[in-house]
Amino acid sequence: MKKIEYIDGGVCAPKGFKAGGVYCGVKNQAKKDGNESPSGKKNDLGMIAADDVCAAAAVFTTNKVKAAPVVLSMKSLEESNGMARAVIVNSGNANACNSDGMENALRMRGTAAEALGIPPEQVLVASTGVIGQSLNIKAIEEGIAPLVSSLSENGSESAAAAIMTTDTFKKEAAVEFHAGDKICRIGGIAKGSGMINPNMATMLGFITTDAAIEPKVLKSALSETTEKTFNRLSVDGDTSTNDTLIIMASGLAGNDEISLDGEDFEIFKSALFMVMRDLTKMLARDGEGATKLIECRCISADTPDTASKVSKTIISSPLIKAALFGKDANWGRVICAAGYSPAEFDASDIDIYIGSEAGEIQVCRQSAGLPFSEEKALEILSRDEIIITVSLNSGEASSTAWGCDLTYDYVKINGDYRT
Amino acid sequence: MKKIEYIDGGVCAPKGFKAGGVYCGVKNQAKKDGNESPSGKKNDLGMIAADDVCAAAAVFTTNKVKAAPVVLSMKSLEESNGMARAVIVNSGNANACNSDGMENALRMRGTAAEALGIPPEQVLVASTGVIGQSLNIKAIEEGIAPLVSSLSENGSESAAAAIMTTDTFKKEAAVEFHAGDKICRIGGIAKGSGMINPNMATMLGFITTDAAIEPKVLKSALSETTEKTFNRLSVDGDTSTNDTLIIMASGLAGNDEISLDGEDFEIFKSALFMVMRDLTKMLARDGEGATKLIECRCISADTPDTASKVSKTIISSPLIKAALFGKDANWGRVICAAGYSPAEFDASDIDIYIGSEAGEIQVCRQSAGLPFSEEKALEILSRDEIIITVSLNSGEASSTAWGCDLTYDYVKINGDYRT
Repeated sequence: MKKIEYIDGGVCAPKGFKAGGVYCGVKNQAKKDGNESPSGKKNDLGMIAADDVCAAAAVFTTNKVKAAPVVLSMKSLEESNGMARAVIVNSGNANACNSDGMENALRMRGTAAEALGIPPEQVLVASTGVIGQSLNIKAIEEGIAPLVSSLSENGSESAAAAIMTTDTFKKEAAVEFHAGDKICRIGGIAKGSGMINPNMATMLGFITTDAAIEPKVLKSALSETTEKTFNRLSVDGDTSTNDTLIIMASGLAGNDEISLDGEDFEIFKSALFMVMRDLTKMLARDGEGATKLIECRCISADTPDTASKVSKTIISSPLIKAALFGKDANWGRVICAAGYSPAEFDASDIDIYIGSEAGEIQVCRQSAGLPFSEEKALEILSRDEIIITVSLNSGEASSTAWGCDLTYDYVKINGDYRT
Repeated sequence: MKKIEYIDGGVCAPKGFKAGGVYCGVKNQAKKDGNESPSGKKNDLGMIAADDVCAAAAVFTTNKVKAAPVVLSMKSLEESNGMARAVIVNSGNANACNSDGMENALRMRGTAAEALGIPPEQVLVASTGVIGQSLNIKAIEEGIAPLVSSLSENGSESAAAAIMTTDTFKKEAAVEFHAGDKICRIGGIAKGSGMINPNMATMLGFITTDAAIEPKVLKSALSETTEKTFNRLSVDGDTSTNDTLIIMASGLAGNDEISLDGEDFEIFKSALFMVMRDLTKMLARDGEGATKLIECRCISADTPDTASKVSKTIISSPLIKAALFGKDANWGRVICAAGYSPAEFDASDIDIYIGSEAGEIQVCRQSAGLPFSEEKALEILSRDEIIITVSLNSGEASSTAWGCDLTYDYVKINGDYRT
C-alpha cells in the first residue's frame, strides 16, 4: 500500500467541492427583529457545495429525541437514494425541541436549494447550539445569498469557523492517497465540544472525497470508521440531539470506482480513518474546558469488543478526567473503571502504564500497584497529551479511545451556556 | 398501617446493638512506623457489634474489580449462612488492588473477632478510601482494642464519623414502627461521596433492626429497597470497587417473625425504605463538591423500568449537573438526556417541570419549549433542593432518582485526592 499523505485544504482539498461561511446573526435578537446588519462577528452559517451531485452517506445521533434537521436530512438521503450536493449548517441554535423546528428546517433547506439551483432533497441540513429555542430563520434566510456568494475552493476554514460553538479552534484535516494510478483526496471539518459521548459522539462532521466509490461502499466505510473514531470519543457522557456526520464523494479523481471487494477499498478506509481519527483527536483536545488530550489504549484483550468497551469506559470516567486535570497518577480509578465496564474479562490480571505510546512507566501489574517515581509521573501528567495503556493479558485485540480532562472551565462553560 | 416515626440514635436505635469509632492512623505513615500515638484526629476505624448473633444480608458492588474486604465479607456471609454479629470498617484506604489485600482483610477480621470473642466468619469487613495502596494493618490491629472499648449504645455518631472520607457530614437515620403490638426499630449510617453511580451506588451503608425477620425475607427487603434508593443515586457515574451495604437484625423487638406473606412485611419495607431513602438523599446532598440536592422524578411512564431508566439517566448527566450548579434552567439538556436513556418511549410527548414536588413551573410541553419566567426559574434554582419532574404521558409508573450538581469543588477534590 502506498503512503497516505497529509495535505492542506480541509473539506475543499478533494476536487469538485467549494465551501464558505458567513455571520448571519442566528443568536442575535436585534437581527431577528431586522434592526442589525451582519458584520464583524464569528461565522454562524456555513455551506459545503459540490459542483455536481455526489454519492453521500451519513451517520446520525442515536438519541430518541432528534433535532428537526436530523430528521429532515435522514429523509432527504432516503428520498434522493443516497445522493446529495450540498450541506447547509448553522451554529448558535440546535433547532431541537421546539414547535416550529421542522418548518424552519424545511425553509432553510428550500432557500438554500433555490439559491444553488438544485432540488431541495439534495441539500442536507444540520444545526448545533442551544436546544429548545425557536430558530432565527429570518437571519438564516437572509444569510443564504451572501453564503452562496462566499463559496470558494479556499472556503474550508470559513465553513469550519461557522460550525463552531464553544470550540476554541477550527478543526480540519485532509489526506491524499493513490487508487490505481489516480490521486484521490479526502478532507473534513468537524465541531465539538461538549455533550460528547461515544455513541455517535456529539458533533457535526462533514467529509468530502473525490474518489469514485459505490454509495453502499461509501456507507460501509463511513460506518466502520465511525465506530473506530468518533464513537471512541467522550467529553462528558452526554449524547446530543443533533449529532450528524456526512460524507460526499464527487468521483472527480477519475479512479476506477471503489467496490467492496476491490483492492482500493482498504486504502480508502485507511485514508478515511486518518482524517476521522485526526478530527476525533482535535475534538477531544478541544473538549469543553479541556487542558489536555487523553488517549486510552486497551491492549491484549480477547476480543475487539472487550477492548473497545474497556477503553471507552475508562475515557468516560469523570474521576479519571478530574485526576488527570490535577496531574494525579491515580491509576486505582483506571482499574476501577475497567472493572465496571460492560465487558467480561479476568479482573485479576490487569497491567497499567502511563506516558507515551511506549508505556514509559508501569503503575500496576496483575491488578496490584507497583512502586513508581512520583516525579516522573508528574512530568508525564504535565504534558498536554497523555496515553494510558491498559493490558488485559488475555488476547491480541486492542482499541483506542480519546477524551480530555475534566476541569473548572468545563463546569464554568456548562453552568452558564444558555444565558 | 400505623405511622412510621423518625427517631434518634442511628444504628444504635434498635435494641441489641452498640457502635463506636476511633482514630487509629490508617493514613499515617509515622503511625505505620510506630512513632505516633492515635489522638485528636478524625475517626478512621469503626465498629457495629450486636449483643448476639443476627440474621444478616448484604449487597455488594457490581464492579468486576472487587476489594479484598468485599470478597471476604461475601465469603463470610456464605460460610455463616447469612448470620453475623459485627462489622468492622476503616476509612482512608480501600484495601483494593494491592498484593496483600486479602491477607490484611483476614488479619483485620481475625483481630476483631478475637477482641469480641466470636468466630471470625461472624465479623464482616469493609474498607473505603484510596485504591491500590497497601493497608496500614498495624495501625488497625493496634486500634481494635480501643475500638472495642469504645463500643456504646450511644456510639452511632462515632461510627458514622469513622467511615467518612470526603464526606462533609455524618449520615444517620432511624425510624420506629409497629409490628403487631411490638415496637420495632430500624437505624442506619452511610458514607459517600464520590465515585457514586446508580449500580449499587458507591458507598458504605450499615443498617440495623431489632425486628425479628426471616433471613431470606431480610435479604428480599434489602434488595428491593436498594433498587429504589441507593441504586437511584448518582454523583459522578463511577461505580467503586468497595460498595457494601449490610443489614443485621437482632430480633430483640419481640415481634412475631416477619415472613414474606405476613402483614408486617409491607410496613417493614416501608420503614426500611424511609431509612435508606433518607441516607440516599444525604449521600446525594453531600456528593463531592455538591451545593445542592437534585431529585428527578419520572412520572406517567408506561412501566417502572422506563421510569427508572429515564430518572437515572437524567440525574447522571454532567451537563445537567453543571447547568444546575450555574442556576441555568437549561431543560433542553433534560429532554436530551431522557432521549439517550436506554428506555423506549414516545419522544414527542414529554413534559418537564422544575421546582418543588408540585412542579411550580412548566418549561416544556409535548417536547417543545414553553415561555417561562426566568426570574422565577432563578429563584427555584437558587434553592438547595431542586426537583425536576419529567412526564412521559404514557402510563402510571413513576420513579425517583437523586443526585447533586457538578461544581468547581468536585474537580478540585478529585484532582487532588490521592496526594
